[in-house]
Amino acid sequence: MRVGVIGGGQLARMMVPPAIELGIELRVLAEVEGSAAGIAATAVGDYRDAATVVAFARDVDVVTFDHEHVPQPVLAELAAAGIPIRPGPAALAVAQDKLYMRERLAALGAPVPAWAAVHDASELGDFLAAHGGAGVVKTPRGGYDGKGVRVVRAADGADDWFAGIDEHASGGALLVEELVDFRRELAQLAARRPSGDVAAWPLVESIQRDGVCAEVVAPAPGGEALTDAARDLATTIAAGLEVTGVLAVELFETADGRLLVNELAMRPHNTGHWTIEGAVTSQFEQHLRAVLDLPLGDPAPRALWSVMVNVLGGPAGETMPDRYPIALAGEPAAKFHAYGKESRPGRKVGHVTVTGDNLDDARSRARAAAGFFQN
Amino acid sequence: MRVGVIGGGQLARMMVPPAIELGIELRVLAEVEGSAAGIAATAVGDYRDAATVVAFARDVDVVTFDHEHVPQPVLAELAAAGIPIRPGPAALAVAQDKLYMRERLAALGAPVPAWAAVHDASELGDFLAAHGGAGVVKTPRGGYDGKGVRVVRAADGADDWFAGIDEHASGGALLVEELVDFRRELAQLAARRPSGDVAAWPLVESIQRDGVCAEVVAPAPGGEALTDAARDLATTIAAGLEVTGVLAVELFETADGRLLVNELAMRPHNTGHWTIEGAVTSQFEQHLRAVLDLPLGDPAPRALWSVMVNVLGGPAGETMPDRYPIALAGEPAAKFHAYGKESRPGRKVGHVTVTGDNLDDARSRARAAAGFFQN
Repeated sequence: MRVGVIGGGQLARMMVPPAIELGIELRVLAEVEGSAAGIAATAVGDYRDAATVVAFARDVDVVTFDHEHVPQPVLAELAAAGIPIRPGPAALAVAQDKLYMRERLAALGAPVPAWAAVHDASELGDFLAAHGGAGVVKTPRGGYDGKGVRVVRAADGADDWFAGIDEHASGGALLVEELVDFRRELAQLAARRPSGDVAAWPLVESIQRDGVCAEVVAPAPGGEALTDAARDLATTIAAGLEVTGVLAVELFETADGRLLVNELAMRPHNTGHWTIEGAVTSQFEQHLRAVLDLPLGDPAPRALWSVMVNVLGGPAGETMPDRYPIALAGEPAAKFHAYGKESRPGRKVGHVTVTGDNLDDARSRARAAAGFFQN
Repeated sequence: MRVGVIGGGQLARMMVPPAIELGIELRVLAEVEGSAAGIAATAVGDYRDAATVVAFARDVDVVTFDHEHVPQPVLAELAAAGIPIRPGPAALAVAQDKLYMRERLAALGAPVPAWAAVHDASELGDFLAAHGGAGVVKTPRGGYDGKGVRVVRAADGADDWFAGIDEHASGGALLVEELVDFRRELAQLAARRPSGDVAAWPLVESIQRDGVCAEVVAPAPGGEALTDAARDLATTIAAGLEVTGVLAVELFETADGRLLVNELAMRPHNTGHWTIEGAVTSQFEQHLRAVLDLPLGDPAPRALWSVMVNVLGGPAGETMPDRYPIALAGEPAAKFHAYGKESRPGRKVGHVTVTGDNLDDARSRARAAAGFFQN
């Protein structure tokens, strides 16, 4: 069995260990030499070039992805060459365009923040006026980790984005959403295989800083009342959009206790890294099983609590292992994950997970372990 | 940080996932193309050839091993080239020769079966006469998985081995040991780093069939009374022989409740595969930490019970993934490990581990999971 992954980032990297364990061959099309997933990179090339992608994929049983950015015309050529693509082009189209995502979520009856497609400052002003004078403007394509997202409180607050917008992206429109009064952010991950089975991990809480995931606590503390609703929502979305592989549903828990869908991702997700140690089946193993249409593994948690803390930045030019003599001594039960990247301020270079019976203890140890790399 | 592993078998293969997680570069010198550790094989060559080994090792921070068979002259050339070797040549010499091992264990005061070096049928006969008429004859070098081991009940029972013995191996002698009346077999694994720290996993029970490890139960049921003794013994041996990396001490529990050392291995060991899921720090991660002289990880168990069952053989020409559609569906909580080898009757092609709160349940599920591949 052979899986081809387009994109050589840390998500592809973290698919390698379960592929080795299961005896599945993983081939990665990386963007550059020395990528995070370099050990499995059998090709280096541009994922926007159809010939490159089709040549890479010719000998694999299925193609999957480290990111959502492969253009639809490239996916169409892959499909025409008879290569299974999971998630498929139709599902990926939803993940690639936030306006189209809102349309599809609305059609599925999924609860979402109030939103509109706005083509100019006047339309944006109308939306703001109707929603308390504030909103969140998002570029429909290409945003990540807080980029392409901006809180606006005036009609001219997105003029620069209107001026630069690619008219072909989404009919020349930006997405604007109400500024949700939320208590906290949650995430529900699930995996679906082509034959329809879905397996969902526990609902988790994610703590964001500057639009970037900083910490994840599994399960979400006090989330019992929301568990069934979140699981049903993820299952409905996965089935409705015919997602194959891992689906991440980022959620707001509103001040009045409702769940609203914030974003979707159709691949392993930062809010699921805790599953490597914290669940019987990790999101990376499950993604491989799902895209190969193999039976899904048990997503049950392996500990009462799992806390994941991202390692962001650190002194430029260093790598995480440079600090191991102190960090590993300081937290012998923490699990360290380094992505093979040199540090830059704010760059995700790795993460740390601690599992245990006591949430406060696990959290403080995970923070301490990650802290060794961040000053 | 860069670790070079000599030998491309499943032990090297299983070092790759923790190396990826920790962000440590692993380079493997494999015997053949397409080895189990092929994904990390940066070179293919003969580990008995000093020039090959020294060239392979030139750019690594430390050399370690998938097996104990690298000849001492090759190790001497590595050392002369200034390349750190862990475990070191002096420790490996003990693992390479069972007669020398018995001498060193005796000098450390470790309890061992009665033994002798015998040079001919007459000496063997004298030993048998003194030990109830039966004994176990072992070739000092090159045995594994029951090969090079034979129960004898007559003085001429090893004549073929005496005739073929390499005089330079161990002074032309075979090892003979008393036939131990044992209740069961146990194994104590520990890791030691050059600076001296030792971390020991729980004592485990191993069930052998035809001289090959079939199952491992962690911790050893009813082993509480022996736990301290086994841990002290492994610590004494690791320190006394200056082992670096993982040390496996295979033990007999005698009918009258004593522990006797059966064999030693100075590398990750089949009786430690359960640690991948069953311990906070797996033997493969710990081996990497230890040989790099990094702080050791927590060896505590992650479940009340872990049961590992080897996958031996199966229909020739098949690989484990061929059976995944049925096996993964049958045991969704089992963790499957395939070594990338085609099946042959009796060949170790993988293993399965199940963890849980109930030993009988974990054992029956692990056996069922392994059973899918064996008929």
